[in-house]
Amino acid sequence: MSHENGILISFEGSEGCGKSTQIRLLADRLEDVDHRDVVVTREPGGTLIGEDIRHLLMHADSSQKIFPETELLLFAASRAQLVRELILPAVTDGKIVLCDRFLDSTTVYQGVARQIADDPVTQINSFAVGDVVPDLTVILDIPAEVGLERIKHRISDMPDRMEQENVEFYGKVREGYLHLARNLPDRFFVVDGLGEPEEIEILIWNEIHARFFNED
Amino acid sequence: MSHENGILISFEGSEGCGKSTQIRLLADRLEDVDHRDVVVTREPGGTLIGEDIRHLLMHADSSQKIFPETELLLFAASRAQLVRELILPAVTDGKIVLCDRFLDSTTVYQGVARQIADDPVTQINSFAVGDVVPDLTVILDIPAEVGLERIKHRISDMPDRMEQENVEFYGKVREGYLHLARNLPDRFFVVDGLGEPEEIEILIWNEIHARFFNED
Repeated sequence: MSHENGILISFEGSEGCGKSTQIRLLADRLEDVDHRDVVVTREPGGTLIGEDIRHLLMHADSSQKIFPETELLLFAASRAQLVRELILPAVTDGKIVLCDRFLDSTTVYQGVARQIADDPVTQINSFAVGDVVPDLTVILDIPAEVGLERIKHRISDMPDRMEQENVEFYGKVREGYLHLARNLPDRFFVVDGLGEPEEIEILIWNEIHARFFNED
Repeated sequence: MSHENGILISFEGSEGCGKSTQIRLLADRLEDVDHRDVVVTREPGGTLIGEDIRHLLMHADSSQKIFPETELLLFAASRAQLVRELILPAVTDGKIVLCDRFLDSTTVYQGVARQIADDPVTQINSFAVGDVVPDLTVILDIPAEVGLERIKHRISDMPDRMEQENVEFYGKVREGYLHLARNLPDRFFVVDGLGEPEEIEILIWNEIHARFFNED
């Protein structure tokens, strides 16, 4: 992204990979070392209408089958709003935006794992984001089994619909992310999500420092 | 559409053009003269999740700006679900489906009137509907001023967000529909929406009879 001073960093990975924890740790670190405002947001959601869309997607009655095409378009709608209402103004204003999921989630979840063809996924993603592409995307990489085991322990009476998928599905999600990272190494940073959160935070910070805070 | 026996007829036009009345009259007529089931549905809506999307679109807090890109993707999401959950099974099953708005509404409202580029509108519409295109689309054509005057008289404390647009907007909508009809004369039937409902119903029925019920 060419907006002066502002930075957009997205976090990706399958359920249970530790995104929320790492975003919180990074936001704390940035607030300590940098004068710029840090904005933390998420997808789907992040705006009023985006959160309504999130609710539709995550808590649809289980009797109500949402088709993959509907799902993709709802994610894209939330993203289109988030980009225009929050991300673009913040980055233009010189802020650092940390986003829990962004366009790569659609590429991987709806594209690879639900097998929607590449062309419409790319076209719809591109329509939703315009020219807003993350400056850096951090992938927290964990085996599918570990992610599923982790989210089982979350306190929740009713697991989200998206979290009820099986190991095979999350295996495809993981491979999808790694494939993206191999194709676009300049934008992606893959970090092993199996270590202690504090160790992972240091790896991520070192990468971010080298990319955006190294004055040499 | 090549599905044996089933028929999909969509109704289009700007607000206040009389679509709902004509759909009701046609459904009554079809039930009198034809043995096939008649299914009446609408966009956005027609399914559980589609009606939730309709509510988001129509009743968003006025403080909450919905960007044109978000709007287009929400309409498309509702359409993707309607096609797969209701229209395709009904038509495949030999039913006659009457739909209050369908893909041409997006072409005209988001494309022409909100000036979103043709390519993404076409790509997203095509992704949403797959190969489901109406066998006939009836356009009820009225001047923008007449439509706005008519909807002022609707009993409602809070007019829908989409109905708060101005004459210039609805002028573009009208021109957009007429342009489509000129380009695709085989699919469209334009009828003057200014007459008495019973007279308009006869014009529409004559066209439908000639297209689908003429055994000669």
